[in-house]
Amino acid sequence: MTRGRFITLEGGEGAGKSTQLKALAAALRGRGLDVVETREPGGSEGAEAIRALLLTGEADRWNPRAEALLFAAARSDHVDKTIRPALERGAWVLSDRFLDSSRAYQGMGDLGDADILTLHQIGSGGFAPDRSFFLFLPDGEAERRAHDRDGGAADRIGGRDPAFHRAVADRFARIAAQEPDRVRSIDASGERAEVTARLMEALDDLLP
Amino acid sequence: MTRGRFITLEGGEGAGKSTQLKALAAALRGRGLDVVETREPGGSEGAEAIRALLLTGEADRWNPRAEALLFAAARSDHVDKTIRPALERGAWVLSDRFLDSSRAYQGMGDLGDADILTLHQIGSGGFAPDRSFFLFLPDGEAERRAHDRDGGAADRIGGRDPAFHRAVADRFARIAAQEPDRVRSIDASGERAEVTARLMEALDDLLP
Ligand SMILES: Nc1ncnc2c1ncn2[C@@H]1O[C@H](COP(=O)(O)OP(=O)(O)OP(=O)(O)O)[C@@H](O)[C@H]1O
Ligand SMILES: Nc1ncnc2c1ncn2[C@@H]1O[C@H](COP(=O)(O)OP(=O)(O)OP(=O)(O)O)[C@@H](O)[C@H]1O
Ligand SMILES: [Mg+2]
Ligand SMILES: [Mg+2]
Repeated sequence: MTRGRFITLEGGEGAGKSTQLKALAAALRGRGLDVVETREPGGSEGAEAIRALLLTGEADRWNPRAEALLFAAARSDHVDKTIRPALERGAWVLSDRFLDSSRAYQGMGDLGDADILTLHQIGSGGFAPDRSFFLFLPDGEAERRAHDRDGGAADRIGGRDPAFHRAVADRFARIAAQEPDRVRSIDASGERAEVTARLMEALDDLLP
Repeated sequence: MTRGRFITLEGGEGAGKSTQLKALAAALRGRGLDVVETREPGGSEGAEAIRALLLTGEADRWNPRAEALLFAAARSDHVDKTIRPALERGAWVLSDRFLDSSRAYQGMGDLGDADILTLHQIGSGGFAPDRSFFLFLPDGEAERRAHDRDGGAADRIGGRDPAFHRAVADRFARIAAQEPDRVRSIDASGERAEVTARLMEALDDLLP
């Protein structure tokens, strides 16, 4: 049995990660692959319990260091209980956010990228995706999509200001530049099916 | 306002940490000090929520790496919200367990002591006690005390086997040998009041 592939979808709020995850899963199943859909924070029983601590309560409920540790703990459980076992039985695993979101969101200010990578090394042995798609949209378009969807509601992290979200986009861009083999930046504008086609094309080298 | 002192009580289950914490707090209050009593995991609102995740459920609910990250996250919140503010207003803080318990319990096997110290550096900037008391008892005595108290009940970590608890005692002894300025090993046998007197004597150099 060949090991499956681990694919992550990353990007700011409203970029279309969840929408494309479903579409990509369907496309891969259409090719006869066993596909597991998962998400972060969460994706396993323990990690979902940690997710509840992370996404509820006041915006300053956790200091940035505690928050980064909680994300790393959830990810350790997620890799251990959900992702690795699925890959080992040959399934492809698609995750809605993974390590790069921690690097983009938590690795700013107080903590640096090196700290986030150290936490991932300790928590999950540095476990890395085979491919990570960073979905990007022109300024304003993601906010419009997310606002249409949620009518303005947002969780503890999504609810931060525009400067914060621009800084996140910059961090994603920097990671993409540093790791061109793993990361593909994908234009997420246009029709849903067009975006899915771009993703499938950018997976071509990994498909059986 | 002089900064207060941060004192931790460490040692295996049933050594008398909680009993002595109360007695020590009373003795220090008797000297006119403002004393805050706290404990780990927990000691702040966020850390108590993490405690609930750590101490309930199956013995293998968390892999050792996720568990170490959760302890470090709880400790980060505890230092930030409870310990540091109290010290800054001049109070003495006594904690029932702290970092050394993570080093003794989680820094075995899969993870090493260096990993636990790295997590504490990232989570809490390496924040260290002014003095740590390691309470030790002759083999069998701690188990007898804890059993008398609990009638055999134990939580997810306390419920492990004797070999595990001997390994924990060895880890505590190693830390004590490495850090003689901070750590004092205290014979916890005999009457409660005798043990408290030993603790007060071993604090003499820090008392105002
Ligand atoms: N190509 C598209 N064109 C127009 N609208 C889209 C497109 N893709 C997704 N949407 C809509 O935009 C909104 C945001 O999409 P989605 O929820 O997939 O984004 P997301 O990246 O998962 O966001 P979040 O980070 O908040 O989870 C949804 O209402 C979705 O239906
Ligand atoms: N000096 C002593 N002599 C006899 N019994 C004692 C003495 N000190 C404490 N005990 C009793 O031993 C039991 C364990 O003590 P305690 O709960 O303080 O230990 P602990 O180190 O906090 O344990 P745990 O790690 O399980 O929290 C309690 O029932 C307590 O009353
Ligand atoms: Mg989504
Ligand atoms: Mg106790």
